[in-house]
Amino acid sequence: MNNAIGVFDSGVGGLTVAREIMRQLPNETIYYFGDVKNCPYGDKTKEEIIKYTDRAVKFLIDKGVKMIVLACNTATAAALDYLQDKYDIPIIGVVQPGARRAIQATENNKVLVLGTKFTANSKVYDIEIENINSEILVFDKACPAFVPFIESEGNLDKEATKNILKESLNNTSNLGIDTVVLGCTHYPILKKDIEEYYGSSIKVISSGREAAREVSTVLGYAKLHQKKLNKKEHKFYISEASENFNNIASKWLNKEITAEVVEI
Amino acid sequence: MNNAIGVFDSGVGGLTVAREIMRQLPNETIYYFGDVKNCPYGDKTKEEIIKYTDRAVKFLIDKGVKMIVLACNTATAAALDYLQDKYDIPIIGVVQPGARRAIQATENNKVLVLGTKFTANSKVYDIEIENINSEILVFDKACPAFVPFIESEGNLDKEATKNILKESLNNTSNLGIDTVVLGCTHYPILKKDIEEYYGSSIKVISSGREAAREVSTVLGYAKLHQKKLNKKEHKFYISEASENFNNIASKWLNKEITAEVVEI
Repeated sequence: MNNAIGVFDSGVGGLTVAREIMRQLPNETIYYFGDVKNCPYGDKTKEEIIKYTDRAVKFLIDKGVKMIVLACNTATAAALDYLQDKYDIPIIGVVQPGARRAIQATENNKVLVLGTKFTANSKVYDIEIENINSEILVFDKACPAFVPFIESEGNLDKEATKNILKESLNNTSNLGIDTVVLGCTHYPILKKDIEEYYGSSIKVISSGREAAREVSTVLGYAKLHQKKLNKKEHKFYISEASENFNNIASKWLNKEITAEVVEI
Repeated sequence: MNNAIGVFDSGVGGLTVAREIMRQLPNETIYYFGDVKNCPYGDKTKEEIIKYTDRAVKFLIDKGVKMIVLACNTATAAALDYLQDKYDIPIIGVVQPGARRAIQATENNKVLVLGTKFTANSKVYDIEIENINSEILVFDKACPAFVPFIESEGNLDKEATKNILKESLNNTSNLGIDTVVLGCTHYPILKKDIEEYYGSSIKVISSGREAAREVSTVLGYAKLHQKKLNKKEHKFYISEASENFNNIASKWLNKEITAEVVEI
């Protein structure tokens, strides 16, 4: 089926998910919406997050997408259930795929989730994992320094990265965990560094990468895959002009991106 | 939802999938059907495989299962589409989950699938992967010596295992692959040995383990998960008395299993 996949985030973070969908499913087209006008969502109420997310999802559905990915842990925590009930097309988030992969990957049933303050405080991963497998112990660690560091200009300095990891992940190595979940869509940019930090005996899981896998699972069972290379152009929409968005999108996707500003 | 998950195989192989479902999803109950009377399926026609598989699936559905896993590569290749069209409950196979994980895991787009002669000749993994991501090159290798070796009595001798891997996997290391799919539900019994054989730079994927993950995905989106530990006893059915089935089941699941013989 030739329709696009709608990918939503409050800002640039979801681009790591879009990038993974492009890598795993090169036949598919993506329509991306970044609600940069209202970014970040972390300090908003649940009702506000539902309102903003719903507006963007409706915009994407009106553009004809065949499924929606909430490529944002905050929006997933606040709005996924509401939107799944409201709309007929498949809507998935990033939390559940990451949780399922952690359940699959851990062998000693001890998992650490790294995320923003909002995600860590919401315990959304703990709840998802507990619902499926209550034998697993989940630790949460907020890493508030990561997002501004990742979004900062220029290439990420190796030494500065090492230092920020050392400060942020302090005391997490001795929790006895064998699996770490990157519970924020920005963090895959630091994945190799985080893997180095923890060493080869600890598996590092990117929720966004797992979400891309589950896009394929959902499309597969719904028989909605685009089977031939006959796709349209990826499109990028933002709710307010943002040079920062275009710069980061161009860097992360490795091609010139100029998002269209739309009022919704 | 308290209903069981139906797991079907022509024999014992699917028990590795059942075991993974038990490990990842300890809240869930399994009803297993092994069609030992008609095992193996590999030398049967597509029509016969559909007939036998359909009969077992109908038996499990009559027992009230909420979803079906065709824990057999041959039955998946021959009967999955037919059964998905025929029945209303979710039915998944082992091939697609393994294919999707291979797509996710490979970084150099070169994947090797190990399987029975039937699976290798059917090119079922090649077709599934090609449908989703035509940039990936898939090699197939039949390993007909593995199943009789794995089913043989007693514990698998380390030296004998090494020899059989060396003979069967000869010339596959130099294909340039970075990902190997165990495309037969027996092979996870040799997973650690196969990982040792290929070394740490090549990822080894078990289709059954990925199927268990997708059971969780499908139950999650259909909101069919059993959320509390309130499960029933796992049950095992076979189509003909078989000491071999009970012995292998008891060994692989690490508890005494006596399957009920049923005529269907």
